[in-house]
Amino acid sequence: MVAIFLSRAAPKKSAMKQSHLFTKTRKEAPTDEVAQNAKLLIRAGYIHKEMAGVYAYLPLGLRVQNKIKQIVREEMDAIGGQELIMTALQSKELWEKTKRWSDEVVDVWFKTNLKTGGEVGLGWSHEEPIAEMMKGYISSFRDLPIFVYQFQTKLRNEVRAKSGILRGREFVMKDMYSFCLDEADHTAFYNRTIDAYMRVYHRLGIGEDTFVTFAAGGAFTKFSHEFQTIAETGEDVIYIHRAKKIAVNKEVLNDETLKNLGVSRSELEEVKTAEVGNIFNFGTQKSEDLGLSYKNEKGEAIPVWMGSYGIGITRVMGLLAEKFSDEKGIVWPESVAPFRVHLVSIVGANGEAVKKEAEKLYQTLTDKGIEVLYDDRDLRPGEKFADSDLIGIPTRVVISEKTMKEGKLEIKDRKTGTVSMLSESDLFKLL
Amino acid sequence: MVAIFLSRAAPKKSAMKQSHLFTKTRKEAPTDEVAQNAKLLIRAGYIHKEMAGVYAYLPLGLRVQNKIKQIVREEMDAIGGQELIMTALQSKELWEKTKRWSDEVVDVWFKTNLKTGGEVGLGWSHEEPIAEMMKGYISSFRDLPIFVYQFQTKLRNEVRAKSGILRGREFVMKDMYSFCLDEADHTAFYNRTIDAYMRVYHRLGIGEDTFVTFAAGGAFTKFSHEFQTIAETGEDVIYIHRAKKIAVNKEVLNDETLKNLGVSRSELEEVKTAEVGNIFNFGTQKSEDLGLSYKNEKGEAIPVWMGSYGIGITRVMGLLAEKFSDEKGIVWPESVAPFRVHLVSIVGANGEAVKKEAEKLYQTLTDKGIEVLYDDRDLRPGEKFADSDLIGIPTRVVISEKTMKEGKLEIKDRKTGTVSMLSESDLFKLL
Repeated sequence: MVAIFLSRAAPKKSAMKQSHLFTKTRKEAPTDEVAQNAKLLIRAGYIHKEMAGVYAYLPLGLRVQNKIKQIVREEMDAIGGQELIMTALQSKELWEKTKRWSDEVVDVWFKTNLKTGGEVGLGWSHEEPIAEMMKGYISSFRDLPIFVYQFQTKLRNEVRAKSGILRGREFVMKDMYSFCLDEADHTAFYNRTIDAYMRVYHRLGIGEDTFVTFAAGGAFTKFSHEFQTIAETGEDVIYIHRAKKIAVNKEVLNDETLKNLGVSRSELEEVKTAEVGNIFNFGTQKSEDLGLSYKNEKGEAIPVWMGSYGIGITRVMGLLAEKFSDEKGIVWPESVAPFRVHLVSIVGANGEAVKKEAEKLYQTLTDKGIEVLYDDRDLRPGEKFADSDLIGIPTRVVISEKTMKEGKLEIKDRKTGTVSMLSESDLFKLL
Repeated sequence: MVAIFLSRAAPKKSAMKQSHLFTKTRKEAPTDEVAQNAKLLIRAGYIHKEMAGVYAYLPLGLRVQNKIKQIVREEMDAIGGQELIMTALQSKELWEKTKRWSDEVVDVWFKTNLKTGGEVGLGWSHEEPIAEMMKGYISSFRDLPIFVYQFQTKLRNEVRAKSGILRGREFVMKDMYSFCLDEADHTAFYNRTIDAYMRVYHRLGIGEDTFVTFAAGGAFTKFSHEFQTIAETGEDVIYIHRAKKIAVNKEVLNDETLKNLGVSRSELEEVKTAEVGNIFNFGTQKSEDLGLSYKNEKGEAIPVWMGSYGIGITRVMGLLAEKFSDEKGIVWPESVAPFRVHLVSIVGANGEAVKKEAEKLYQTLTDKGIEVLYDDRDLRPGEKFADSDLIGIPTRVVISEKTMKEGKLEIKDRKTGTVSMLSESDLFKLL
């Protein structure tokens, strides 16, 4: 029998040697890939294309995805969100109650059959099951408000799946749902969520270019809101007032809206954008359809006010990869980069001393909790630098015979391209 | 427009007030639920039943699931595993290559249709897509070994789905895959994984009752191995030698095996168990079917040795809930409990002082990073204690007028039932 040892080295998740990473960069993306985000992410080893619109997330890609999730999670928690996880398999009978089972009403359903008989759907959205579940937890006015969210893999049977991870058949979404007593409480939370979303986008490095955009409302509200980020390859067009940070989409670009917002058509600039979030006010429609109500102080049954709030996690990752890239590769914002530092050793004739020095710095960075990818591979400098530019980690630190002679480190900022020679202590000040 | 505030309170994930938690406990489980694990977990508010074999994980349940994942993640990282995440949607053509697309060969497929034409499968397992993907990353002997793992939601079209989260139609599994040069390297990693798995079970509190169990081997190996945990409600039966910590399953309980292992039939004890992990040696069969090979130093193409290693994360959670429970509810092991401390305030006539004291302790626990659920609800003591026992957090701390008079805290150990009066500083020593 194999002996059991309970002691073990503490795992160091924040550091990795590139010789250990199984992915390799590629010069070319697959020929069937047309989206810029997917081309970059596949070439750099972040994702793998399983089929059109369906991508696996490899070690570097999962790190980026998790960092985006964590930023969103912190901001949802900060406004009172409670995290849970619903299911992929969904009940036909439930979606029939809101008349959304039919393929003519919802055109992205994947459906399948249970061996025991009967059809089930695969979750393209989760407001019906969450509202139905809440019937078990909401009975009195004392139970409200409730805000819940999840990071869920959504499955959507898209006809067009040519946008890489910007619009997939399988993708990760953060969807939050609010359950409130009345319109006033609902509106207050809706507005807090707008703030929280903008905090998310600022932390992701796209705050300046992201606009809360007025769009057509539904039965319960004059306007709805989208979050749109300026992007050359974006699918949408919006009209922005940069100074006032106001934006409208085409649906509502009319005299009445402009008057409401106090802007004139000539002040607006037409820009291409990608949607990075959307929020909906359901009013009491869905609650009435599903029978979700609470008892007020008089004992009367009142339908719950509901809202839903989405951020496409993998979509945002795709947008960041496209928006922050140059001809050499990706330029990740610090907040989502898979690692903070890319340590690169250039091993020449006097190889052992360089290796030892690089290994020492790798250890120091790791001990300080600075996330570092260490390119310890036995490759030509040009290849290592090209890989580093493609992968797009914010700060590259080179150790070579030359830097050792000077007693310094060569630091390159991926974003600006600036190269400087710094001492180790100056590097730590920079980080 | 809504103003954007970038400052925000640091989120305190490790602490929660029960008045804020949307779930409530229930006296009765749904009448259609027959599994003991699901009854307990539903009553305590950990999970929600979407349909037979399909459960959502509510805030408390997601916390437990994440703790189990984190233990498994640390141990997989410690043996060199690289985490990634594959996809739910899977290619028919790929599974046809290994002759496992047919429902007659694999009887748990969920299948669906793309709008653009063609059938796709929903991932019940991932060895085919992972092996196929590795063809893009393995070319030379220098690329091996590779160990990758994921936490994936598996979908299996089970006919029987009456075991709660022990065997579901939708569940979370950790599946790891190894890619090695040859049998010797494969066997070494296979044995390291057995050790890592046993470390996982020890950390989950079931190490003593979990047996590496000899089962029938395949084409490439005499035995395969299962990990079986003694459980009254288990579906399996194995034969254990407690002193030697050896076990065999029924398939291989014969004279030859007993002789090999150096034990006699009369020394073995028959016990009911639940499987908590399994490992497979694929040899080179799957690599040959899919064309996954590497070039050796002579430039010859050699098929890769593959293994797969599974732990059902949600299954383990169900087992723990069943195995560690009594007539009052769940008794979580410390390592996976949703919180370390359940702080309960008993507010009588002199309510404000007790509330203030409880709030202060809640803050102190939070500041010290001790995970605490604070039952601040305005309910009778009996209800609060019953809820606390049902939810099963390891240490209950009660603050009441009585405890305040004594200048102590009432501490109850959920496992032993022992009640003691401790000072605050003694409580922190205990924790």
